Amino acid sequence: MTRYRASADFTREWKHFRFEVDDGVATVTLNRPDKMNALTFESYADLRDLLHELPTRDDVSVLVIRGEGKGFCGGGDVNEIIGELITMDARDLIGFTRMTGDVIRAMRECPIPIIVGIQGIAAGAGAVVALAADFRVVARSGKFAFLFTKVGLSGGDMGAAYLLPRVVGAGRATELLMLGETIDAETADRYGLVSRLVDDPDLDDAVLGLARRLADGPTLAYAETKSLITRELDMSLAAAVELDASTQALLMTTHDHTEFHDAFNARRTPEWKGR
Amino acid sequence: MTRYRASADFTREWKHFRFEVDDGVATVTLNRPDKMNALTFESYADLRDLLHELPTRDDVSVLVIRGEGKGFCGGGDVNEIIGELITMDARDLIGFTRMTGDVIRAMRECPIPIIVGIQGIAAGAGAVVALAADFRVVARSGKFAFLFTKVGLSGGDMGAAYLLPRVVGAGRATELLMLGETIDAETADRYGLVSRLVDDPDLDDAVLGLARRLADGPTLAYAETKSLITRELDMSLAAAVELDASTQALLMTTHDHTEFHDAFNARRTPEWKGR
Amino acid sequence: MTRYRASADFTREWKHFRFEVDDGVATVTLNRPDKMNALTFESYADLRDLLHELPTRDDVSVLVIRGEGKGFCGGGDVNEIIGELITMDARDLIGFTRMTGDVIRAMRECPIPIIVGIQGIAAGAGAVVALAADFRVVARSGKFAFLFTKVGLSGGDMGAAYLLPRVVGAGRATELLMLGETIDAETADRYGLVSRLVDDPDLDDAVLGLARRLADGPTLAYAETKSLITRELDMSLAAAVELDASTQALLMTTHDHTEFHDAFNARRTPEWKGR
Repeated sequence: MTRYRASADFTREWKHFRFEVDDGVATVTLNRPDKMNALTFESYADLRDLLHELPTRDDVSVLVIRGEGKGFCGGGDVNEIIGELITMDARDLIGFTRMTGDVIRAMRECPIPIIVGIQGIAAGAGAVVALAADFRVVARSGKFAFLFTKVGLSGGDMGAAYLLPRVVGAGRATELLMLGETIDAETADRYGLVSRLVDDPDLDDAVLGLARRLADGPTLAYAETKSLITRELDMSLAAAVELDASTQALLMTTHDHTEFHDAFNARRTPEWKGR
Repeated sequence: MTRYRASADFTREWKHFRFEVDDGVATVTLNRPDKMNALTFESYADLRDLLHELPTRDDVSVLVIRGEGKGFCGGGDVNEIIGELITMDARDLIGFTRMTGDVIRAMRECPIPIIVGIQGIAAGAGAVVALAADFRVVARSGKFAFLFTKVGLSGGDMGAAYLLPRVVGAGRATELLMLGETIDAETADRYGLVSRLVDDPDLDDAVLGLARRLADGPTLAYAETKSLITRELDMSLAAAVELDASTQALLMTTHDHTEFHDAFNARRTPEWKGR
Repeated sequence: MTRYRASADFTREWKHFRFEVDDGVATVTLNRPDKMNALTFESYADLRDLLHELPTRDDVSVLVIRGEGKGFCGGGDVNEIIGELITMDARDLIGFTRMTGDVIRAMRECPIPIIVGIQGIAAGAGAVVALAADFRVVARSGKFAFLFTKVGLSGGDMGAAYLLPRVVGAGRATELLMLGETIDAETADRYGLVSRLVDDPDLDDAVLGLARRLADGPTLAYAETKSLITRELDMSLAAAVELDASTQALLMTTHDHTEFHDAFNARRTPEWKGR
């Protein structure tokens, strides 16, 4: 994917979360466990910028987002964020809400599968980041709270009023976004908000196992699948069928599709190349 | 909200259902229990007009719709409505179906949360009114029947073919709308059509408790959440994220958002004003 | 419906599946049980053409699609289809993917309810054909596998990335389309992908019973219900309510609606005519 880089450098150090890449799997770890990994203006900005850079790197096939310690992410910090927002003027406010929305759009539009691993609370913006991921691997201690109305704001934050009805249905989404109550992992699973429900000691392995599997490919097939799911939520049946036809015809010309056929006939495991 | 009233009077008396307002909670009670609260041409018209007036009153923050007696609402009356329809010409027929559709659109577009409390049957138009509400508090005796095909009509009545797939998924919606069978409260709950499932003796308290909570605010945050959920079903991800950003920036300037912050730091309960 | 036929003949013999019509119920049986009823270039073309002819016949009110033997349909044949695709140029590839997409569009846009009866595996294109049906009657042996990524292709094949999120929610659809794993009938039922879950020995009767019921009418009401569900997935609330109003007003002028009223008052069973 690096074919189309030009002047811009890659960011050398992400200062507001831990960032590691290991054999195709990038991991962002929100690392303020004493603050339940609350987001700050700077960590939002770093997430936005990272998500725009990732698709142009060629060493990352999967992104994992985790939280350090007892919870995933408690959302925006009450004092560092809300304390500032209530003093801001319109330009800075819309600048902030657009930045946070950009994080969610970039998560959905980035052609790289994103996995969140959730122990403990995913609240506010933390719940929306979880919602925007492709896979939510959730420990039994996991909890979701779209608590925006509890702070006097709209439940439709960062695209939540678009995404949640499409994941759990409009009835349950109304309950979750309007009332802002906390639901446990079992309820979230029943609603369709959980991809994999695991015991807490198994969370790390479940996340890494899924990440490994996705990174092993066929990565272009995964990337296109994600793009189609994202885009076809906004398309008519007729347009979606046409988009599928073009995409699939393109993928039929790839090494990976031929490789499947060769491996199938040779009774061996395919070696995917992502092209 | 009364700021923008001009010449039009409020309707003084709603003749085709009981209407009460108590401390921010308006209640419509369909009150023909001997006819299973069947709707008539006049009660549809009153519902449409009430829903257009409510947002311009300043004394109503929540609307509750109930049915008197053993059931919620059996739909349009077979003789008073169907008996008339089969004698009508095209102009009166489209006038009728547009009026009933207007009730449902007004329920979804009205920036006031709507709760239905359901004991016994919600059938036909009664099921669609329940479907268009934000919260369905349902007793164990509750039942839903989108029975339109059983009277020779389309299951897509008053927006049902739009709303139901978005609440329970397109597969289950097809079964319910095409076949018109009755489902019980437990099945409806499993499908995502129930916000709260309660024992029959607890229904009144559950409805009023939820209404009280919503009326206590933050009412502007609730109203905006409802509007965003309604509108973002019809928007692309990119447009929805932008709408969320603008709405949230606006709400960040409100008393209620600042009040949350003040109350949080003073360790007291916020006093919401809805502005 | 034959009113608007002109020069074109009906196809006299469908060579690539078994086709029977019995008292309003048409049945397509995929009949290559030794190949798990794998689809071929020819059976796709026959499905496409049949689906375009059916609405202009007047002897078919319901379409049933079944597979002979132990499974429903294993998808495209690895050697007969994939072996050919990897040698094709762009024009033939897009021709193929457009044809397969046409089958799915025709299934959704055809104003005739479609029932699939599923024992054993529904995989790849077989899973998408099942997904595009109106009713999925599934035996306990039933299994679904949207296995496209396993052959190096996109999970969004033939409209699957449009349809599946609207049936099971975007979270579960991502898991099924991205990973391509097989799910059993109970899981599919929990996700909302199953209309009726039955024991294997009861499958034939369940499919035929549902087909009989739909064929007995009111067939125009069923056809319109299907069309509205299909179309309103792509429409705004306001447009959908208007479409419902027009459609319902039209149906209120039909024999079948009057017949309901007459039969109701005479306490007899309605005799539907589909007009």
